[in-house]
Amino acid sequence: MKTALSALGQRTAPPPISWLMKTALARPRLISLAAGFTDNATLPVGISRQVLNGILCSPKTGQPALQYGTTAGEEKLRQLTATHLQKLDGGHDRAHTPERVIITGGSQQFLYMTLEALCDEGDVVLVEDPTYFVFLSILQSRNLKARGVKLERDGLDLAHLETVLERLNKSGKLRRVKALYLVTYFQNPTGVTTSLAKKHAALKLLKKYEQAAGHPIYLLEDAAYRELRFDHGADVATALTLPSAKERVIYAGTYSKPFATGVRVGFGILPEPLFTAVLRIKGNHDFGTANLLQHLLARALASGLYNGQVAKARNNYARKAAVMKRAMTEHFTANVDIWESGGGLYFWARLPKGISAGVNSKIFQAALKGDVLYVPGELCYADDSSRAKPDNEMRISFGSASEENIREGIRRLGAVLRRFV
Amino acid sequence: MKTALSALGQRTAPPPISWLMKTALARPRLISLAAGFTDNATLPVGISRQVLNGILCSPKTGQPALQYGTTAGEEKLRQLTATHLQKLDGGHDRAHTPERVIITGGSQQFLYMTLEALCDEGDVVLVEDPTYFVFLSILQSRNLKARGVKLERDGLDLAHLETVLERLNKSGKLRRVKALYLVTYFQNPTGVTTSLAKKHAALKLLKKYEQAAGHPIYLLEDAAYRELRFDHGADVATALTLPSAKERVIYAGTYSKPFATGVRVGFGILPEPLFTAVLRIKGNHDFGTANLLQHLLARALASGLYNGQVAKARNNYARKAAVMKRAMTEHFTANVDIWESGGGLYFWARLPKGISAGVNSKIFQAALKGDVLYVPGELCYADDSSRAKPDNEMRISFGSASEENIREGIRRLGAVLRRFV
Repeated sequence: MKTALSALGQRTAPPPISWLMKTALARPRLISLAAGFTDNATLPVGISRQVLNGILCSPKTGQPALQYGTTAGEEKLRQLTATHLQKLDGGHDRAHTPERVIITGGSQQFLYMTLEALCDEGDVVLVEDPTYFVFLSILQSRNLKARGVKLERDGLDLAHLETVLERLNKSGKLRRVKALYLVTYFQNPTGVTTSLAKKHAALKLLKKYEQAAGHPIYLLEDAAYRELRFDHGADVATALTLPSAKERVIYAGTYSKPFATGVRVGFGILPEPLFTAVLRIKGNHDFGTANLLQHLLARALASGLYNGQVAKARNNYARKAAVMKRAMTEHFTANVDIWESGGGLYFWARLPKGISAGVNSKIFQAALKGDVLYVPGELCYADDSSRAKPDNEMRISFGSASEENIREGIRRLGAVLRRFV
Repeated sequence: MKTALSALGQRTAPPPISWLMKTALARPRLISLAAGFTDNATLPVGISRQVLNGILCSPKTGQPALQYGTTAGEEKLRQLTATHLQKLDGGHDRAHTPERVIITGGSQQFLYMTLEALCDEGDVVLVEDPTYFVFLSILQSRNLKARGVKLERDGLDLAHLETVLERLNKSGKLRRVKALYLVTYFQNPTGVTTSLAKKHAALKLLKKYEQAAGHPIYLLEDAAYRELRFDHGADVATALTLPSAKERVIYAGTYSKPFATGVRVGFGILPEPLFTAVLRIKGNHDFGTANLLQHLLARALASGLYNGQVAKARNNYARKAAVMKRAMTEHFTANVDIWESGGGLYFWARLPKGISAGVNSKIFQAALKGDVLYVPGELCYADDSSRAKPDNEMRISFGSASEENIREGIRRLGAVLRRFV
């Protein structure tokens, strides 16, 4: 008898790092620099308690928080989200209006539903090379094609973006291209932040090729790490501030990473007709994210406790990133190219070409034996037959490990690198 | 320029009752007996506060609750869920094991992902006539076909189920049939509870037709209202207790309806290979339901506060159902056939044949003008060209309205019925 599973059900691959996580659990001494978890020590335990007590101290505020809300999200949180983004974007309110905001179960759910609304099987999404691997998992599951665009230290390689678009145009595939997906702040996995000028230029390029595509090509900006800036550099405005933002920019944001990953509340901003389509799809997914969590975040934002928490998290990650950097300087061989970031949770380390740090490499296996785990960079590259996947890179996270474990983990990893590099 | 939306994005219809809800908001005097909301007055404000304070009073318990969990759900909650179901099912543990449980964002998300894992476009799902309309919305959005099976006062019409299966077999469409979807307790919208004998017989019938289908046909049991029993009748065991449950029964449950709808935590139990497929799909949707809510429910369950809350909710709905019944007896015309239920949130009222209570009917319009809202029964019937949709029925909810509003709402509705019936 055949399986009854759908093509999607049969096709969907396990998450690439699930086995890494299982491996981690089986080795109690192992130090994981792999997971994108945030730091337990900075999680807002006291703040959450205070805010939830405020909500649940009376039926008047408690009952609405424990009742169903609306599919688009709690009105006050939608308003606060729009205002919050306006402030971050220096007062811009071009595309930052509450009625364009949808509140979701983390930004991951938003990304999923946006791809459902936008892409048919076989459609193409342009992604950074490398990019966020769970986004690639969605593409794989839904039978969408990814095309990688090279990444430079300040964001997308615009010349390469044009080359890719031109190639797709010539091969007649441009009509399948629906979006360019950019993780614009302290990118997962490289830590790269894309300048506003590059976002603007990319948006113009997409616009230029729309005629040939026959339909809009959207810029999907994922700003998940935006608020985890710790380098005291100037914030970069989002693509929402650009001229055609209201028609062509999809923005994915989250409160989970900066506030608490156990409070899964993300959000998105969408142009029509995508907003309506995603709202309807969310009606079928869950008809609204848990209201209690939305009320928690609305109060935290309105009271300023949210901003205080974010400041605390930033200081903590600044310290941990510095600890990791010092340890890398001490223990890594000089020919490892380390991409430092001004925020986020990751360092990106490139070994000399020809030396593999991939899943099956001697380095990865030796690291595992030496009880230290990183994410092989190759997992962050899309399946794109037009280029080989680099395998000489590592994503190394200072998110969840303690300072002591960061030092020890990097020492262990350094010992492995000295043997093989 | 064409739209860039996917076929799904273009196809997905607005939820059938979203405009009802909007209408309700625009008429401040309107009494809604339409929404499936639970009662604000019984929401566990104090209990939630107490439990959350217990979790967040120390970093040791607070931090794990505010951190990411795993995709399948919090281990303790999965265990407690299995145990909870075992107890409800009189000690049965045939298919009630923690490792087969997945925790989801309400049972709605579970239903969505299960259909993703199971059905390709054009596949057929058998549903009760009538059934839960948001399930029908998922089918519509994903281009799945529904076939309605008649419903009797004690559940599915088994003879009709066999007729439908036989017809599908003869027309060569049986190979597209993937599941039979039953809302087995105090069904939305009719209030009907399906006996265990009927579930068993249905499962056997599905099994009988599997050979011709060439693949498993699953029984998808949605037990959302199970714990909202208030008639002091004996509980009915789930299909999980039946002989082939471990291979063929998918069970959808929820804590949202019995505990708090603002705490969106549902769960499902799945046979392989469906469990693995749904788990992978959830990895792409959100890689895990908000951990804080899962910790809240785990503590509420373990402490017995959950059961206390459910008992309170049951008493409340028993009282409100009785109020509604008395009002209906007083105000409705005698030729209205009222289906009473021993639980859940709804009465089902059938007008004499030929009298429409549908969206465009005089009765619905007059009710709206008279400031009372119900759900036209026709919205709960699948698009199934093999039969006409009955339009002489009404779903009337005592869930969210106060006792006073229930009395006044039924009085208003009765006045309309006396004019037209």
